[in-house]
Amino acid sequence: MDVMIPLDRESPVPLSHQIYHELRRAIVGSELPAGARLPSTRELARQLGVARFTVDDAYARLAAEGYVAGRRGSGTYVADHVQLRETENGDSQPSRPVERRLSAWSRRLPSSPDEIVAQRVTGDEIRFMTGMPALDAFPWTVWQRLIGRAARDQSIATRSYTNPAGLLSLREEIAAYLARSRGLRCTADQIVITSGVQQSMDVTIRLLVDPGDPVGIEDPSYRRVRKLMVAAGAEVVPLPVDANGLNPKSLPRDGTPPKLIYTTPSHQYPTGAILPLNRRLDLLAWSDTTGTVIVEDDYDGELRYDARPVPALAGLARERHGVDNVIYTGSFSKVLFPALRLGYAVLPRDLVTPYRRVRAAIDWHPSTLAQATVAAMIGEGHFERHLARMRRLYATRHAATIEAIERHLAGLVSLDHESAPAGLHLLVRVHSSRPEAEIVQRAADHGVVVVGAGPCYITPPDEPHLLIGFAGTPTEHIDEGIARLARALGA
Amino acid sequence: MDVMIPLDRESPVPLSHQIYHELRRAIVGSELPAGARLPSTRELARQLGVARFTVDDAYARLAAEGYVAGRRGSGTYVADHVQLRETENGDSQPSRPVERRLSAWSRRLPSSPDEIVAQRVTGDEIRFMTGMPALDAFPWTVWQRLIGRAARDQSIATRSYTNPAGLLSLREEIAAYLARSRGLRCTADQIVITSGVQQSMDVTIRLLVDPGDPVGIEDPSYRRVRKLMVAAGAEVVPLPVDANGLNPKSLPRDGTPPKLIYTTPSHQYPTGAILPLNRRLDLLAWSDTTGTVIVEDDYDGELRYDARPVPALAGLARERHGVDNVIYTGSFSKVLFPALRLGYAVLPRDLVTPYRRVRAAIDWHPSTLAQATVAAMIGEGHFERHLARMRRLYATRHAATIEAIERHLAGLVSLDHESAPAGLHLLVRVHSSRPEAEIVQRAADHGVVVVGAGPCYITPPDEPHLLIGFAGTPTEHIDEGIARLARALGA
Repeated sequence: MDVMIPLDRESPVPLSHQIYHELRRAIVGSELPAGARLPSTRELARQLGVARFTVDDAYARLAAEGYVAGRRGSGTYVADHVQLRETENGDSQPSRPVERRLSAWSRRLPSSPDEIVAQRVTGDEIRFMTGMPALDAFPWTVWQRLIGRAARDQSIATRSYTNPAGLLSLREEIAAYLARSRGLRCTADQIVITSGVQQSMDVTIRLLVDPGDPVGIEDPSYRRVRKLMVAAGAEVVPLPVDANGLNPKSLPRDGTPPKLIYTTPSHQYPTGAILPLNRRLDLLAWSDTTGTVIVEDDYDGELRYDARPVPALAGLARERHGVDNVIYTGSFSKVLFPALRLGYAVLPRDLVTPYRRVRAAIDWHPSTLAQATVAAMIGEGHFERHLARMRRLYATRHAATIEAIERHLAGLVSLDHESAPAGLHLLVRVHSSRPEAEIVQRAADHGVVVVGAGPCYITPPDEPHLLIGFAGTPTEHIDEGIARLARALGA
Repeated sequence: MDVMIPLDRESPVPLSHQIYHELRRAIVGSELPAGARLPSTRELARQLGVARFTVDDAYARLAAEGYVAGRRGSGTYVADHVQLRETENGDSQPSRPVERRLSAWSRRLPSSPDEIVAQRVTGDEIRFMTGMPALDAFPWTVWQRLIGRAARDQSIATRSYTNPAGLLSLREEIAAYLARSRGLRCTADQIVITSGVQQSMDVTIRLLVDPGDPVGIEDPSYRRVRKLMVAAGAEVVPLPVDANGLNPKSLPRDGTPPKLIYTTPSHQYPTGAILPLNRRLDLLAWSDTTGTVIVEDDYDGELRYDARPVPALAGLARERHGVDNVIYTGSFSKVLFPALRLGYAVLPRDLVTPYRRVRAAIDWHPSTLAQATVAAMIGEGHFERHLARMRRLYATRHAATIEAIERHLAGLVSLDHESAPAGLHLLVRVHSSRPEAEIVQRAADHGVVVVGAGPCYITPPDEPHLLIGFAGTPTEHIDEGIARLARALGA
């Protein structure tokens, strides 16, 4: 027998299993041809320096699975039918390259460099990451206590499949919180828990959009939502944004009305504009006539530092007498932490059942433990105390960033819109003819990590734009970080 | 002013916020018409019995948001433009019923009663639930310790967005485990973590299937996978199952080959048949010629009690010289617990990148904490020790169920196929002319919960079938549970 059986005596894999596996591989790979006689178990045990029962065990398993057959008194042979199939494909043919036709959906899905490409982390760069809360100021001790309690609660952990809409306790806490903080009155049964805005949008688009349907999205906007629209085969209509956010005058009034539009009225992403009341009312009046579903992504609506947060558009919609066309989406990624993977959608009554059906069909439901823990965070007041603390901290970091930009970057960059003290990032326009990617790279070379805003735009802007995520950056590093950016820009 | 402002002094919502909210509601709802003069803050404070600054605060907020305007010296008035938009819709018009056109995808999604309809739990029924492991035998203490450790590990909890394919540590542990236990050799980069088989299948179908494409599924099979195929607009080809599982002779050989087929070779769902080696080889040889992707759902392949588990079909595919066409899907729902919501897919090399892109586009990534905890469960050996204990426990419960069926149900039911000691349930054929739903209801009336297998079948069987999930039922209740079923069947 020509088969090498390399044994790893340090491995947790039992020796008999290793022998079985190597012989099986050799049989299927035709190194041991059909009808070949295997050595006796005594002989192989001697060769390998293992106990005979170890080899017996391997042979018994091969026989049970049909790879070998024993003829009493004459030893063990490779079974015929295994070989038969193998030779059909040619023994020595290498793996053929595969040409597969993927679905239209996945062929349309825009290719883009993975957003989480590993950064060269040297340890002394200063990072201005977008969508990143202050993880160093998170109440981890409280979190650990609550998650421990949820994990010990047999009524939570031992529940098998729970409601695809999410745990009722969490939905009740979210409904009460939205009424208190976002001016949005809804009942727990209008809420569906998702794994975040991305899944909320995936379900929404799947629910409503067919290939060829027009859909609207702010320009600039969050590019991962636009990707889903493109993949769905929708005709994507850019909705221009100015210093007051989405301009209702630009909404399409002729032709097939959009099936849905995606908007960020509390704090436009990425410009930071806040949609004023008269525009909100115009937007709602427009959707009354077109029937267009408005998706309000309130991704950081709670994070306003100079004034109370503007109430949600969805709340306004529900207080009017018109049709309720607003789907509200929220996320815990920015107000708690991103690795949590929990968000939610609040639905007009007529869409609750269809939305739940789609959500249940594609993913059943999210982690019960995480849901129970967040329900306790909200219910016991930790969530809102944390938010209040973060508003103070982010206000400080926002002011420090504005100050540092004025000090180091005057003339080199400008803020496109008035940057209200809100959210987790600032958008700056860079007065430079260099490509955006080159600026980002030069910044990294100077020890500061910033993100280019170019991918947010459908209509390319005339100058490069950077996103300066300030919320997760320690206050004492902000000035030096911006100074490094100034050096990268050649100041 | 005619507006009632009910104040709840016990509420955590500040009084100024309550006043603000009620006034806003009255303005938007047209109870306070455009141009109406609000009472002075002093007057309203007196009426409501609150401090004047409380009302000041509410008015300031209404003004900041554009609902009211103050004219110096002459009081506070409801702004015009709010009313303007409202009257366009008619003040007293009730909410119109909505007629929305949902997408073709969601219109195709089969309607079915929610699988998790609340059962009347009286506390003394005996439950034979499918897909339900023995939660009372789960090592909760170990689990709590590991989850606590992961929650305290700042490098886990504070990681923001992680790799959409899943935590590398978990993928490495899964790769090692599959090599040890399932005869499947793969590298961590071929693995993508999902929230379970349902999401794995959603991604797979989205990746490969266009409306009109033929796809194959065993008949009977897991109906939630078939739902996704139907929603995708695929032409669903039933693949008949016999006592040895999927019969390769029934695979389509003419016309457009299926884009994918879905199969459960280790333990056919729901019949329990185990696909023998010669059929596995025929199946792989067929997919070599058609290019069809074979999805192997190994949902409970680890749970074999009389013999070692049959190695995965995907392992066999990778040892041959042909094209690797097998996507392997696994889940922790049945070997750990369902509320965890973690599963994975192991992909042929050419599909790794496209699959990861789809997964990242629709849902970013699963809960980092749960991933880290399961990685520790496997890496520290708890996972396989638990599996070994469960094999012994489930073997006992399987034997007890077979024995009870022979004792109480002889002549009333039969096991369609030889029921190998494996998995979490048995499929029984009921010799009855009653509809399946009526049998399930009668069983519930007699204090025993069983699940009808009818929805698994594309071609309706000639007699009703029941799924008897034995794994989660305490051993000492099994005999009495089956006796109750016998009484329900009129024995």
